Amino acid sequence: MSSSLPHVAIVGATGAVGVEFLHILEQRRFPHASLRLLASPRSSGKKLHFAGAQLPVEPLTPESFKGIDIALFSAGGSISKEYGPIATAAGASVVDNSSAFRMTQGVPLVIPEVNPDAMPTTIGPRGNGAGIIANPNCTTIILLMALTPLRRAFGVSRAVVSTYQAASGAGAKGMDELLSQTDAALHGREVVPGMFPEPYAFNLFSHNTAIDPVTGLNVEESKVIHETHKIWSDASVRISPTCIRVPVLRAHAESANVTLSRPAMLGEVRAALENAAGVTVVDDRANNKFPTPLKASGGDDVLVGRLRADLSQLEAGASPEGPTRGFDLFICGDQLRKGAALNAVQIAEMLLARAGR
Amino acid sequence: MSSSLPHVAIVGATGAVGVEFLHILEQRRFPHASLRLLASPRSSGKKLHFAGAQLPVEPLTPESFKGIDIALFSAGGSISKEYGPIATAAGASVVDNSSAFRMTQGVPLVIPEVNPDAMPTTIGPRGNGAGIIANPNCTTIILLMALTPLRRAFGVSRAVVSTYQAASGAGAKGMDELLSQTDAALHGREVVPGMFPEPYAFNLFSHNTAIDPVTGLNVEESKVIHETHKIWSDASVRISPTCIRVPVLRAHAESANVTLSRPAMLGEVRAALENAAGVTVVDDRANNKFPTPLKASGGDDVLVGRLRADLSQLEAGASPEGPTRGFDLFICGDQLRKGAALNAVQIAEMLLARAGR
Repeated sequence: MSSSLPHVAIVGATGAVGVEFLHILEQRRFPHASLRLLASPRSSGKKLHFAGAQLPVEPLTPESFKGIDIALFSAGGSISKEYGPIATAAGASVVDNSSAFRMTQGVPLVIPEVNPDAMPTTIGPRGNGAGIIANPNCTTIILLMALTPLRRAFGVSRAVVSTYQAASGAGAKGMDELLSQTDAALHGREVVPGMFPEPYAFNLFSHNTAIDPVTGLNVEESKVIHETHKIWSDASVRISPTCIRVPVLRAHAESANVTLSRPAMLGEVRAALENAAGVTVVDDRANNKFPTPLKASGGDDVLVGRLRADLSQLEAGASPEGPTRGFDLFICGDQLRKGAALNAVQIAEMLLARAGR
Repeated sequence: MSSSLPHVAIVGATGAVGVEFLHILEQRRFPHASLRLLASPRSSGKKLHFAGAQLPVEPLTPESFKGIDIALFSAGGSISKEYGPIATAAGASVVDNSSAFRMTQGVPLVIPEVNPDAMPTTIGPRGNGAGIIANPNCTTIILLMALTPLRRAFGVSRAVVSTYQAASGAGAKGMDELLSQTDAALHGREVVPGMFPEPYAFNLFSHNTAIDPVTGLNVEESKVIHETHKIWSDASVRISPTCIRVPVLRAHAESANVTLSRPAMLGEVRAALENAAGVTVVDDRANNKFPTPLKASGGDDVLVGRLRADLSQLEAGASPEGPTRGFDLFICGDQLRKGAALNAVQIAEMLLARAGR
């Protein structure tokens, strides 16, 4: 990159995450010389609102990346696989929200609050060494925002995680399907499944990705395990995820039962979370106020609450108010923001900072 | 009881569980000489459909139980506490769906498929020894329907459970609140919380019962632990529940991570569940077909699927296809039926059988 303001492109600008990219770039006053919106040809001619202007959506072509310094990709894995290398060859740094390159050796997989050291330390001049940085899976990001402060303070040896995942994880089409099916169900019309294999209105279902015949895990669950191991640089952490889609629009919730490496007091666990960047503790036992998807929606922070010692991991006769290795927590985070667009923009901000802009 | 057909009363007949009592008594052709529907005075004059007739709803009074042999209670704990002893003094056997007597010493807490031996072995003649039998909490019933076959075959030492609980757990009013809020949200009207402290439309929240200041558990979670210990007659089983309400109408889901006392093969776990009365295994990995609340709704069986060895409990280097003590499963059951009315009617059927009717 040159040291002037960067030229930025969004690939998949009309999708749920693409639209959120625009909101976040505007909210954070992301420094840029120009912003190019790219999408499939069927979105050509659309205009999207950005910072008081209407920006045209252009069709994505191999020539789209000429002059681009930073390309934010969120158009699915096959688009990333095809156009990511084209963008980097044209000199852009790519922040890729798809799963295409996450587990590729040499590709950093980054949550800025969690593993900033995984970021490349220098950003070469355009056309020379610019590469791809992968944005982790939304469920992984939200989980690790809550678990990393515990890992830093006490170590984490095991986590059993059950998720409550929003429709936005399947994009704008997923959200539309939830809304239209719910309207049908409320008015006694037939609910016809579309992109999801199960009815979604007033229902929930196991994440509809393929099941590994040996492990019995679906692809989403495997991502949580493998991405956590890569981000934490530690394949010894044991994780048991169960990924479930619930009829919620845009924030994921996760119920986590954690085993720490060293015993801690509940107050120490709470303090570790309260002091963590990007985390807000919402844990008012007296008033029964805890994280919800709606409270997390539209915000930047991951919310953590229902903090308590896990009685099932207490030594016989031990008090839940004493030190223990087992804790339960309930986590909510905006899937489109911290789970996707915000994390990617934070990565782009780190790129700018390291390039001295 | 005399040996002729029993006179039956339903207390709380107009509630969500009350209406389900009527459906189930009719579907199962429950033998009865008469059926008396009791509710609060504001429901007086209502008529409810039963077996082709319209039965009047009568106001509940201390005289309501004259001549009644079996009273099915589902009108909340305070009604059970007040009228349960009145009903038994009048000679009725009470099957109580509230939490009022569940943990009372001497009161059987029964899931017929799980602990039939807890039922009183003889039913005395009317007015002499008839008592109260408690119906467990819905979340506990649905969980133990799935875990008891594993306990019988391999022992269960620990379970980490995250629930996805339906609105029906809060009765007809809870279901109405979900529906009306969802309609408001879909049409851009303000969502005003009513009986629940959090918005329910396209949202989820921690179960809104009081939090114990020492354990951090809410009342629902404490019920799951204590009722399991009573039903299994084993306080050594370690359970870590997290109870969450989700925007689903009438079936609960539960994600359970289980530690067995002895290692088992996945096929053995599956066989134990397939052979269990009241359980249906829905576990088609190739077609991604697993239990959902909608599949469980209206049915009698508890559905179990997503069966897999828990990688996080495997010995280092062990195969998920070999024997292990850790397993994950996903459970769905109709909250109004097996979670409440069906289980209570099954208990009543056992009473009749033991009275020789």
